[in-house]
Amino acid sequence: MSSPRITLTTDFGTRDYFVGAMKGVILGLCPAAQLVDLTHEIAPYAVAEGAYLIGQIYACYPEGTVHLAVVDPGVGSTRRALAIAAGRQLFVGPDNGLFSWVLQKETAVVHELTDRQFWRSVVGPTFHGRDVFAPVSAHLAAGVPIDQLGPLVKDPVLLPGFVPQLTPEEWQGSVLHVDRFGNAITNLPELLPGRRFELEAGSARITKAVKHFDQIAAGDAAVLLGSAGLLEVAVKQGSASERFGLQPGSPVRLSWLDR
Amino acid sequence: MSSPRITLTTDFGTRDYFVGAMKGVILGLCPAAQLVDLTHEIAPYAVAEGAYLIGQIYACYPEGTVHLAVVDPGVGSTRRALAIAAGRQLFVGPDNGLFSWVLQKETAVVHELTDRQFWRSVVGPTFHGRDVFAPVSAHLAAGVPIDQLGPLVKDPVLLPGFVPQLTPEEWQGSVLHVDRFGNAITNLPELLPGRRFELEAGSARITKAVKHFDQIAAGDAAVLLGSAGLLEVAVKQGSASERFGLQPGSPVRLSWLDR
Amino acid sequence: MSSPRITLTTDFGTRDYFVGAMKGVILGLCPAAQLVDLTHEIAPYAVAEGAYLIGQIYACYPEGTVHLAVVDPGVGSTRRALAIAAGRQLFVGPDNGLFSWVLQKETAVVHELTDRQFWRSVVGPTFHGRDVFAPVSAHLAAGVPIDQLGPLVKDPVLLPGFVPQLTPEEWQGSVLHVDRFGNAITNLPELLPGRRFELEAGSARITKAVKHFDQIAAGDAAVLLGSAGLLEVAVKQGSASERFGLQPGSPVRLSWLDR
Repeated sequence: MSSPRITLTTDFGTRDYFVGAMKGVILGLCPAAQLVDLTHEIAPYAVAEGAYLIGQIYACYPEGTVHLAVVDPGVGSTRRALAIAAGRQLFVGPDNGLFSWVLQKETAVVHELTDRQFWRSVVGPTFHGRDVFAPVSAHLAAGVPIDQLGPLVKDPVLLPGFVPQLTPEEWQGSVLHVDRFGNAITNLPELLPGRRFELEAGSARITKAVKHFDQIAAGDAAVLLGSAGLLEVAVKQGSASERFGLQPGSPVRLSWLDR
Repeated sequence: MSSPRITLTTDFGTRDYFVGAMKGVILGLCPAAQLVDLTHEIAPYAVAEGAYLIGQIYACYPEGTVHLAVVDPGVGSTRRALAIAAGRQLFVGPDNGLFSWVLQKETAVVHELTDRQFWRSVVGPTFHGRDVFAPVSAHLAAGVPIDQLGPLVKDPVLLPGFVPQLTPEEWQGSVLHVDRFGNAITNLPELLPGRRFELEAGSARITKAVKHFDQIAAGDAAVLLGSAGLLEVAVKQGSASERFGLQPGSPVRLSWLDR
Repeated sequence: MSSPRITLTTDFGTRDYFVGAMKGVILGLCPAAQLVDLTHEIAPYAVAEGAYLIGQIYACYPEGTVHLAVVDPGVGSTRRALAIAAGRQLFVGPDNGLFSWVLQKETAVVHELTDRQFWRSVVGPTFHGRDVFAPVSAHLAAGVPIDQLGPLVKDPVLLPGFVPQLTPEEWQGSVLHVDRFGNAITNLPELLPGRRFELEAGSARITKAVKHFDQIAAGDAAVLLGSAGLLEVAVKQGSASERFGLQPGSPVRLSWLDR
């Protein structure tokens, strides 16, 4: 059996007391838990960005890891709270699409969090991260079976439109995320080998693909298959986002030229 | 007995070597220590902000946790260095008001750090975080009794003015902190039930109170009792700080209209 | 024997999935590893800044610590990947000067990473942090001897120009780093005692040296020996970088006036 391990992904930033309070609640219930910060820099309320990041990371983690994720614009409303068993790992967070990538890739068992014995004794209306999701994550890490947390859910919320449209003539998708280096990660998959293409994204018109950044001349732009298994628009030692006006949600079209 | 656990709260940011050096010193003296970053994003020298954040977080942590906090504009001067036992937890840092919330809420035993056997062998004048507070925190976590660190202190420094003025006619307080979402957290307590009010803060004139964010219409402002147990000024999916010109220290007045 | 401990230093920031993925890979191979974030805020591609920070921190850590560092503008090119044993600690990262301070201060044994059994089974061209450096660090922390990773390297890359020119008349150096407080850390050593000097750096002309920040009047500038053992240009409760136009790489000249 693996030791208890909980990752944290939020839009809380690191300037406030939110993350520190969640960690304290977890350690009070599961003192041996190994806490791993994935990121707290999801843009505020950006559920789609959180879903993308969790989807890229979880498969690197060993069996039994609990992934606590809170990007929760609907906190205090009637949105459900979930625990999910998928890919031999566990996920805890709001039912708003945050686990769309996980649910799409894996066979999942989903439970609604309803049994308050696994929550904090007082639950405020604005901070379910501390009062619901942190204690539930700690109980799961400590060995509480997921089916004790609440009833099965058959229809977890999925984000619309994160699957690209792929036809023989062209691929249509969008920018999912702009990374720290300004690379624009799209939802388009690996290019077809040996085919010529033109990719349009913002003001970019790109026909060059490379295997790695080092093959791009300084200041030039190209398309490459990123480490996420998705096409990225990159500018060597510069920002593709700034150069071409690309943001999360920007449409991307790839036309096959040699059909 | 709980395993050794040390939280870290500083204004050092995460770009420099300060935090990494403190962690190394701690792990050299107490290799089993579980290190938990609360925040390193306190505004530089902002003792009051640090005091607020520590005051909001510590009660979430299990017994015996050591809270190391360094916001220390007076480093190298004659300001004292402290270790505090309060609320069944331990606190280590400079004597400049940083522990005001803890000292106000809890019965505390305070010791000055004077015994250099618990410090690094060479103490520089500018980095007591690494040279004094980190090693003392590690020794406390490893089981050294607090009364071996130095003499009792009867008059630890308290910050002036973090207690609001509450009269039957009006409440006067101030903004303590602006969180990542732009919410302005005040030092005013929960509203009196069933009473009408007007809150003035910056350019805001607010008469609406809600239970949670979801009850505010997009773009509207309201007052709500935040997860910290303090009144917050919030704008739904926007920044109350930017809309109303609110910053830490901004005065806040709440008038009771129906007396 | 010490428990496995791995520090992480990168230019990946904390907004993306890079750091979280590396941590997952490490924990999959070495579940007991204690992970310590040094910083992920090295400026993108700033190898010299990374080298400075690692050089300031490593000596604080206990024997056997593995320091994983990735600032890697040449990822995917033919630059070598290294593991280094030095100062009774271990270092893993690209061969581009990132370990210059360590290599200059310590007797080091350097190996090139060539044995793919210690890498991830699939290695992408753009993310050696996850696919090469993270798994190698985990194997080292779990006890794999460094000489199994690949052949000895006799000529690891060193950064040019991080050693200052010191003559009896004047010292010439440069700014290495601007810290969170705006202090400009130079590569000049401790001042000669009892000697008068003038330091020129950007628009600054400074003749005053102090022992600690508290001796500088509010708004004034001075030179002091920082906690890194290097001269810093500081403005009390202000930014020396902004006041004097100092950035990493800015030249610094110190003239001895009383010879």
